[in-house]
Amino acid sequence: MSIMVVGSLAFDTVKTPYGEVKDALGGAATYFSLAASYFSPVSVVAVVGEDFGDEHLEVLERHGVDTSGVERVAGRSFRWGGEYSWNLNQRTTLFTELNVFEDFDPKLPAGFRKLPFVFLANIDPGLQRSVLEQVESPELVACDTMNYWIERTPDALRSLLGQVDVLVINDDEARELAGVYNLVEAAAAIRELGPSALIIKRGEHGALAFFGDEMFSAPGFPLEKVADPTGAGDSFAGGFMGYIAKHGEAGATALRRAVIAGSVMASFCVERFSVEGLCDLDSGQIARRYRAFQLLTDFGDF
Amino acid sequence: MSIMVVGSLAFDTVKTPYGEVKDALGGAATYFSLAASYFSPVSVVAVVGEDFGDEHLEVLERHGVDTSGVERVAGRSFRWGGEYSWNLNQRTTLFTELNVFEDFDPKLPAGFRKLPFVFLANIDPGLQRSVLEQVESPELVACDTMNYWIERTPDALRSLLGQVDVLVINDDEARELAGVYNLVEAAAAIRELGPSALIIKRGEHGALAFFGDEMFSAPGFPLEKVADPTGAGDSFAGGFMGYIAKHGEAGATALRRAVIAGSVMASFCVERFSVEGLCDLDSGQIARRYRAFQLLTDFGDF
Repeated sequence: MSIMVVGSLAFDTVKTPYGEVKDALGGAATYFSLAASYFSPVSVVAVVGEDFGDEHLEVLERHGVDTSGVERVAGRSFRWGGEYSWNLNQRTTLFTELNVFEDFDPKLPAGFRKLPFVFLANIDPGLQRSVLEQVESPELVACDTMNYWIERTPDALRSLLGQVDVLVINDDEARELAGVYNLVEAAAAIRELGPSALIIKRGEHGALAFFGDEMFSAPGFPLEKVADPTGAGDSFAGGFMGYIAKHGEAGATALRRAVIAGSVMASFCVERFSVEGLCDLDSGQIARRYRAFQLLTDFGDF
Repeated sequence: MSIMVVGSLAFDTVKTPYGEVKDALGGAATYFSLAASYFSPVSVVAVVGEDFGDEHLEVLERHGVDTSGVERVAGRSFRWGGEYSWNLNQRTTLFTELNVFEDFDPKLPAGFRKLPFVFLANIDPGLQRSVLEQVESPELVACDTMNYWIERTPDALRSLLGQVDVLVINDDEARELAGVYNLVEAAAAIRELGPSALIIKRGEHGALAFFGDEMFSAPGFPLEKVADPTGAGDSFAGGFMGYIAKHGEAGATALRRAVIAGSVMASFCVERFSVEGLCDLDSGQIARRYRAFQLLTDFGDF
């Protein structure tokens, strides 16, 4: 089944100890769409500027992504610049230019309103909610957010969370949103706000999921070379939602496998700069990396 | 089969956000022995002072630990004091008194020399080696170390590692020993020094094992309440070695399960202060926690 994602298509300028790129294709919706495209059809809702050429949209379209919900307006696209520390564990934002995103007022094409799986990537919770209001009875809604919105627009965020099935955030965000350090306690507090499932991304340490009365832990894949962590969280979300949409359900078993599918896509993402690690993969590579996660974690009975 | 461990029996003064203890039973060999005792017979080699009373030895003996290799000499026992940060992730050492350990010259009782499984807890690599020289053809030798020895006695440590099958250290130690940040690269470099298997402890993030051409990742168990992280690493090593000694072999499958057994014992350790979390467990509790690790990590086929 199909997924709709709303979020940024952007240009990133990134420096890591292993190289740098300038004005490279990036943005949460870009990473999400490419990662999800290996599992399910994806339709993207976003705004770009005149600098976002057909060649950029074609990267998405080449992966089957429906870009008819991408509005192109006068001005420059969203741009972000950042630099990673020597061990890749700390990121300094050098600049954030909202540009055309500043006046973004998402309008869903008619064909998008009945899409069953919805992912609201990290943008203003008010925009996330306005998208949700245009969708007719989706089967599952997931969203991301960040500290900026947790601090600046707590009411809008809480109102949104009441309408969301799955929240996908990182560990610092979970702690800040819940106001408690321990992740088990934080998860319980956050799920009280609405989401029946919470996925906590922990960077190189993997992900921790809470759903029903279950916990599920997925490791980060131990890679010998990580080129650029940018987009790992959005790629994770893409693989996660892609798996769920492909199987058309989000029961406990599907959620566990979806978390691994997300981890697989994140591990491909970080191996190369920009979206290169997510382009032109084949299903064999994805199945082999999934199998590598099984070998990494299997241990059997006592 | 039986395990011999050499290391400290000590008194710890520990403060965490959840309480404090003064001169509580501690020491690497204490945590190790108690954790291992649930799987296999354990014999301990250590030195204590006159302040280490029979009531302290009885904590070990009550768990079947053979303390005939514990020498009691004039002076005070090893003492350590430390305080943990609000989130338990940083530890400040307030004092370290080697006391009777300063002149420790381990002499193995005759009955200990043929014990098949040997664990050299974190002490001077010269002492670790002198113990190893008194052992007759052990089946498997594992050891721990710390940054202090990596920096101060690199030659003695390297010489020891050439005679060790399994090295169990934390991530910072692995990075420092290998001189490289990436853990996959660090593992390869460290295994060149001798150990065929390397287990990297990552605190709340679990453990990562390298053996043969395999990697294995175990999560830390997400606990709602952690009282005191002291001894977690030694409890891990105890559960790990205990499992291997119980099954009498260290093939790939046994190593994976041993890492989980270690993780189980570490999770019990941190739930209470001092060694309380490791005392008077029953086999049902251990089997249930192992099962909880299975539920935490199982995901099955793509």
